[in-house]
Amino acid sequence: MQPVALLGLGIMGSGMAHNLLKAGFSLTVYNRSREKAAALESAGAQVVDTPKAAAESADVIIGMVANDEASRAIWLGDDGALSGVRSDALLIECSTLSTGWVRELAELAQGRGCAFLDAPVTGSKPVAESGQLGFLVGGDPAAFERARPVLAAMGEKINHLGPVGSGATMKLINNLMGGVQLAVLAEGMRLAEQAGLDMQQVVDLLSNGAPGSPLVKGKASRIAARDYETHFALRWMHKDLSYALDEATRHNVPLPTVAAAREIYRLAIGQGLGDQDFAAIAEVLRPKED
Amino acid sequence: MQPVALLGLGIMGSGMAHNLLKAGFSLTVYNRSREKAAALESAGAQVVDTPKAAAESADVIIGMVANDEASRAIWLGDDGALSGVRSDALLIECSTLSTGWVRELAELAQGRGCAFLDAPVTGSKPVAESGQLGFLVGGDPAAFERARPVLAAMGEKINHLGPVGSGATMKLINNLMGGVQLAVLAEGMRLAEQAGLDMQQVVDLLSNGAPGSPLVKGKASRIAARDYETHFALRWMHKDLSYALDEATRHNVPLPTVAAAREIYRLAIGQGLGDQDFAAIAEVLRPKED
Amino acid sequence: MQPVALLGLGIMGSGMAHNLLKAGFSLTVYNRSREKAAALESAGAQVVDTPKAAAESADVIIGMVANDEASRAIWLGDDGALSGVRSDALLIECSTLSTGWVRELAELAQGRGCAFLDAPVTGSKPVAESGQLGFLVGGDPAAFERARPVLAAMGEKINHLGPVGSGATMKLINNLMGGVQLAVLAEGMRLAEQAGLDMQQVVDLLSNGAPGSPLVKGKASRIAARDYETHFALRWMHKDLSYALDEATRHNVPLPTVAAAREIYRLAIGQGLGDQDFAAIAEVLRPKED
Amino acid sequence: MQPVALLGLGIMGSGMAHNLLKAGFSLTVYNRSREKAAALESAGAQVVDTPKAAAESADVIIGMVANDEASRAIWLGDDGALSGVRSDALLIECSTLSTGWVRELAELAQGRGCAFLDAPVTGSKPVAESGQLGFLVGGDPAAFERARPVLAAMGEKINHLGPVGSGATMKLINNLMGGVQLAVLAEGMRLAEQAGLDMQQVVDLLSNGAPGSPLVKGKASRIAARDYETHFALRWMHKDLSYALDEATRHNVPLPTVAAAREIYRLAIGQGLGDQDFAAIAEVLRPKED
Repeated sequence: MQPVALLGLGIMGSGMAHNLLKAGFSLTVYNRSREKAAALESAGAQVVDTPKAAAESADVIIGMVANDEASRAIWLGDDGALSGVRSDALLIECSTLSTGWVRELAELAQGRGCAFLDAPVTGSKPVAESGQLGFLVGGDPAAFERARPVLAAMGEKINHLGPVGSGATMKLINNLMGGVQLAVLAEGMRLAEQAGLDMQQVVDLLSNGAPGSPLVKGKASRIAARDYETHFALRWMHKDLSYALDEATRHNVPLPTVAAAREIYRLAIGQGLGDQDFAAIAEVLRPKED
Repeated sequence: MQPVALLGLGIMGSGMAHNLLKAGFSLTVYNRSREKAAALESAGAQVVDTPKAAAESADVIIGMVANDEASRAIWLGDDGALSGVRSDALLIECSTLSTGWVRELAELAQGRGCAFLDAPVTGSKPVAESGQLGFLVGGDPAAFERARPVLAAMGEKINHLGPVGSGATMKLINNLMGGVQLAVLAEGMRLAEQAGLDMQQVVDLLSNGAPGSPLVKGKASRIAARDYETHFALRWMHKDLSYALDEATRHNVPLPTVAAAREIYRLAIGQGLGDQDFAAIAEVLRPKED
Repeated sequence: MQPVALLGLGIMGSGMAHNLLKAGFSLTVYNRSREKAAALESAGAQVVDTPKAAAESADVIIGMVANDEASRAIWLGDDGALSGVRSDALLIECSTLSTGWVRELAELAQGRGCAFLDAPVTGSKPVAESGQLGFLVGGDPAAFERARPVLAAMGEKINHLGPVGSGATMKLINNLMGGVQLAVLAEGMRLAEQAGLDMQQVVDLLSNGAPGSPLVKGKASRIAARDYETHFALRWMHKDLSYALDEATRHNVPLPTVAAAREIYRLAIGQGLGDQDFAAIAEVLRPKED
Repeated sequence: MQPVALLGLGIMGSGMAHNLLKAGFSLTVYNRSREKAAALESAGAQVVDTPKAAAESADVIIGMVANDEASRAIWLGDDGALSGVRSDALLIECSTLSTGWVRELAELAQGRGCAFLDAPVTGSKPVAESGQLGFLVGGDPAAFERARPVLAAMGEKINHLGPVGSGATMKLINNLMGGVQLAVLAEGMRLAEQAGLDMQQVVDLLSNGAPGSPLVKGKASRIAARDYETHFALRWMHKDLSYALDEATRHNVPLPTVAAAREIYRLAIGQGLGDQDFAAIAEVLRPKED
């Protein structure tokens, strides 16, 4: 079977790797801390110590890390994947990244003769585990067709958005909407609580009303319970809003509610909430006990 | 059948009045401009020239107008309804109002010996016409039970939220979420367009993704088409965000994204968009042709 | 000498009262808590127990309290001043109030046959003590001329802005600028500190540069020292920004930076900083110790 | 005399160049469009066609351009200055740039064996012409001492802030304060106008009151007159706020009023105001004629 490398075994990457194995791909994995690779090793993956080693024998190389810095490290760092790629490899960046870095990386890949796709995912941990992720893909159509079987092993909704960077842009737009929807959900629920409403009723009404998006349905009761077990860390939402604002600067598009929300997420990080779920933005709005 | 009066025959009030007639209530209606009452007169309603005249014979008196000023006018103005109410009447304010005014009106009603409920509605024109509105009701339980048959003639989801003002508060929370969700939808779509994405694809992805609330589903394609036929006028969303911010001031709750969005709706009004659908906030974000 | 009443003996009111005595006016004073009046009693003021008692013999009645609620209480409350005024008295409201309440009060005063001026002050405690306050006066010219000798006893820069409400409006504009200037000073200094700059140098450069207003000069070193001894309480700045936003709603004027700053002052109140100097807004921006 | 090169002959650069000539330096200049160099050629400067040519014989090379892109072009572009520098040259970047680019450029300079200072200027056109600029300098002390005679020819207040990047950071802090101060000045004046106040009086009161910074004094009457002749283009203020927000992201410092103001400047650019003075932000707040 086609040799695939996957770089980055966080919550999402691990789920994706298991599905690649299930689909029969010959899989090599790399993670900065090797412990996370143990379960995958048992499941049949080859574990290596550097991105370069993972890339060397792979036909398709997938990146799935936290941010631009981590992506830069796996591709360009010491023993980075780009130093080991075969000239006909296909590189797929599934991380949520700035479009600036995506385009820079695409050029470097081209310089090595490789095909490149940005293909950030939608969905959370259970969705990654069940192989039902969505992929928002940017890049040329031939590369997209070549990637399809690999992506299909990990997800269901595979959308080709346009040239390189289109997937990254669409992902940032998706997340900027989520970031602001959650901020205003937190604001509304804080007001409801302070005004003395029954919070279970508020959760039900908002979830089933006009603003009741899947995100609102999923987070409202957790905010009411002040349960911030991490599905998507607040610091990554802050990062995505920052990337979105950068993209908006590039295109001179005003994003006033995103700009306001980003500053509140940043206040949340300063209050030590960065590693909790992004729903913890609700805590910033609460009065502090003396 | 029980005599009911309805004050205010705008888009919503007219639909509600027709359903009251269908349910067999003896209905008296008042509207500032009498033309709007013609269809209802044909359908069997009695049309009168003052709120006072409407109130005099009614067991239940319903207000359905645009804002605090209009509500104040129908209840307290010259020949206002409060000057004509029977001492055992039930007053139901279905308008979306500030909680301050709702509480003031409730006290005035009590002073006249009347029961009072704030019962703002959720749903739009077709929902009003089909009798499927939601009611968010504040007031004492006895009054709520007394109102139920009347409300049931007009709507389906009838929720009792708590004491007077609770319905108004819940409605403002619902609308502040809608106002911000639409603002950030407009921002995200503007960025998508400027970045060169296919807008039909963007509409589909956002509608079916995590932020895909009924509101997003309903408005995304209209924003893409720049079709702002009025379902809910932008100036009323601006008003509701302002009332929500007032309520937040009362409770000292920070609403940073609401505050940011309100200013953009205000810019929209200054650009002549106040009477268009509130989705027209998207126009504010577009570069202006010279 | 002309009998004058002064209602409200806070930091500002006390300074003003002493200067009225120095100028030879026959002064009656009222304060909610009587202790504050002791020093003035020694200095020759008559101390009474109700606003009504203060108003009864006075030719000119001055209000100097914290906000709309307190103003409403001294003029309209139990034994309020309006119930005791002579029909030819001149009422001068020196508090910083919403223009809505100022206009309502002016009408009530007129209803009693009294002249009315809104005359909020600029300047702080030492300026009040030295009799160098500024007055921003709204009302008709005859009333303004009648008030001049009284105002001149307390201040130096006495400006007539226009009809009733003009003084209140100008004061809110002055304070909205101050509230935002301080917020952005706090933001800039926080960035400077985090970037490792020498804070004394930053204070000097900002104070002597293009943004170096008297306010910046006065507050920058206090922010650097985290010294928030109260000159003007943060909760009153929050109140003034809220009144300014209300006034802007009335005139449909967008105030995006004021709106953003108001929410941060509100977060500050939730963090227990309301009674400290408004420069304490800088604390909201700091990371919190675990 | 010491050979100096100056790259970039905009409003500021031209003034600086003339003062270098007056001080007796042997000056070589480069500008993208050569016409701007004519006056300097008459005054004794040598005009060359590439940054590289300017750099080749210079002991000190000064950059004075609009933004990161332009700076990157003069130093790193085709025939860029870095390709021509002598290994012992001193590079001084006087442009207002992002700290990220400044640090990158400093490393590249070091790689060539050159000394490097970031030394953005404060002051406007007339101040540049009269040789009274301020310099906010970052870099090592030896380089600072070496630069002093050159800087002293162009300015008066020469401040050493710390290591490379410190000057750039201080400049961004200075400008973020200016950008927000002007935004809130525009907001306050718009409210004043709409409330019917006398605008000359408003200008005087704000200029002489607590918020009356040199910036407010300089711009208030121009906003009142809607005179936006460009002293500092709105697009550059937008750029500086964007760089400041980037710097704040790096340090995780919340800048809520800067974030709000930046979006309004961006709306202004979309309305075609980017080349006018940044005081033209006031125009965004005005209702639009139909």
